[in-house]
Amino acid sequence: MSVAQLKDTSRLCVHTMTTKPLSLDQCLDFYQSSNLSGITIWRNVLERLSLSEARRRVDGSALKVVSLCRGGFFPARTAAERQAAIDDNRLAIDQAQALGAPLVVLVCGAVPGMPLSEARRQITDGIAAVLPYARQAGVKLAIEPLHPMYAGDRSAVNTLRQANDMVAELKDDHVGVALDVYHVWWDPELREQIARCAALKALLAFHVCDWRVPTRDMLNDRALMGDGCINIREIRGWVEEAGFTGFIEAEIFSTENWQLDQRDYLAKIKKAYLEHC
Amino acid sequence: MSVAQLKDTSRLCVHTMTTKPLSLDQCLDFYQSSNLSGITIWRNVLERLSLSEARRRVDGSALKVVSLCRGGFFPARTAAERQAAIDDNRLAIDQAQALGAPLVVLVCGAVPGMPLSEARRQITDGIAAVLPYARQAGVKLAIEPLHPMYAGDRSAVNTLRQANDMVAELKDDHVGVALDVYHVWWDPELREQIARCAALKALLAFHVCDWRVPTRDMLNDRALMGDGCINIREIRGWVEEAGFTGFIEAEIFSTENWQLDQRDYLAKIKKAYLEHC
Repeated sequence: MSVAQLKDTSRLCVHTMTTKPLSLDQCLDFYQSSNLSGITIWRNVLERLSLSEARRRVDGSALKVVSLCRGGFFPARTAAERQAAIDDNRLAIDQAQALGAPLVVLVCGAVPGMPLSEARRQITDGIAAVLPYARQAGVKLAIEPLHPMYAGDRSAVNTLRQANDMVAELKDDHVGVALDVYHVWWDPELREQIARCAALKALLAFHVCDWRVPTRDMLNDRALMGDGCINIREIRGWVEEAGFTGFIEAEIFSTENWQLDQRDYLAKIKKAYLEHC
Repeated sequence: MSVAQLKDTSRLCVHTMTTKPLSLDQCLDFYQSSNLSGITIWRNVLERLSLSEARRRVDGSALKVVSLCRGGFFPARTAAERQAAIDDNRLAIDQAQALGAPLVVLVCGAVPGMPLSEARRQITDGIAAVLPYARQAGVKLAIEPLHPMYAGDRSAVNTLRQANDMVAELKDDHVGVALDVYHVWWDPELREQIARCAALKALLAFHVCDWRVPTRDMLNDRALMGDGCINIREIRGWVEEAGFTGFIEAEIFSTENWQLDQRDYLAKIKKAYLEHC
């Protein structure tokens, strides 16, 4: 399958975490002057702002707010902790609604030593508990399958098949999937599960970065597109073949790249996006 | 499902790589005096020995040689490199035969940037090319599915389902699977694929260690059983439910544990084996 090269940045979104050294104001300013089209806002950049102040800033920008990252982390040892997670997810929905973000991305959670089957059950229950609130706010929830190397402590949802199964079980048009090539590129079932996800009308977001060889750190050594071994363009082809036309979001946790001048880095991201996505 | 605790070390095998600071002689000596039953020999400890010398040492020990580690690394960019891999696998078979090891474990290989589907094809072809030699030597080949975090550079076979599919495709009683909890514990299909593997008469080896949270290094931070979050005993239950009665092999790459006095470490391994496997 040959996939046409991207010609412009009209679908390019960057996650604020990709440019971690920048404040929300700087992200909005730099992304816009770099001619990006979308921004996905991580909650850490909201910490010192009221929601109305954050909203005013976003409204003053031409950037589209694509998603809010992140909710989730549902499983816990006690009912009180599980309730605290549900409350925190409702707060994330408030934040998304205030910022005009149509979506909250869920890193679903895991508890070291808790059976994965139990964690998965608690995740489904947690999402179900939050869904009425999300629906009322007009905000969707996107289950992001995380790479199996995070099964111990970050997410018990580790394949697109599992995320699709959860969506099918929850049967609610306010729950879907955020697909990140970093987490799923290795999966031999990827293409067919992308098609299934789209058939469920659940493919809500598409994240890109690259897998560095060797990977020196399990969390913060993601690579710029083209600096690793993921077949990003082919996967974009599968996603688009399934009907996805939304933003392509650069989400790159990289201690190395956070050291760069972040304006220069945004120029590199644009170039990498056009050449490798 | 409740799984009976192991009562003795009659099924306990240790990989020489688990006690990396030790020579083959020291492994044979220390393992036997620690009352272990089996040894899996990594090829690095054979480097300065002729096969007949190595055989003599193994013959002088009461330890059963369970496997030779490792063959594999079949995919490559050129036909010449692929042929070199096949030759190396034949050498591994020679070594296994000389040592009385019934099995060569395969880390199948991957080439950064090569499409995984192509790497998988080259792996199947490579195994097929080596199989007649293995059959003649009376040595089996065991495909070890490796954790998806190694898909970039170590193995394009990342789930038990894939390994089973390859076994089913190759249809040869000299090819099977080596199952390591470290690589597969996260897989929601694990139990059913273990049953399928056994139905294929392909479950040839069972390796244990634990997944440390957080994992500080992708290669050499495996934990002693009980020091991580893997449901080892439950997985042993699934393996035995499927009819497996072979050795339980402690394969632990751990920079931290390699610093320990290795006799003390073997005592810890025995204790961990009895308490957590």
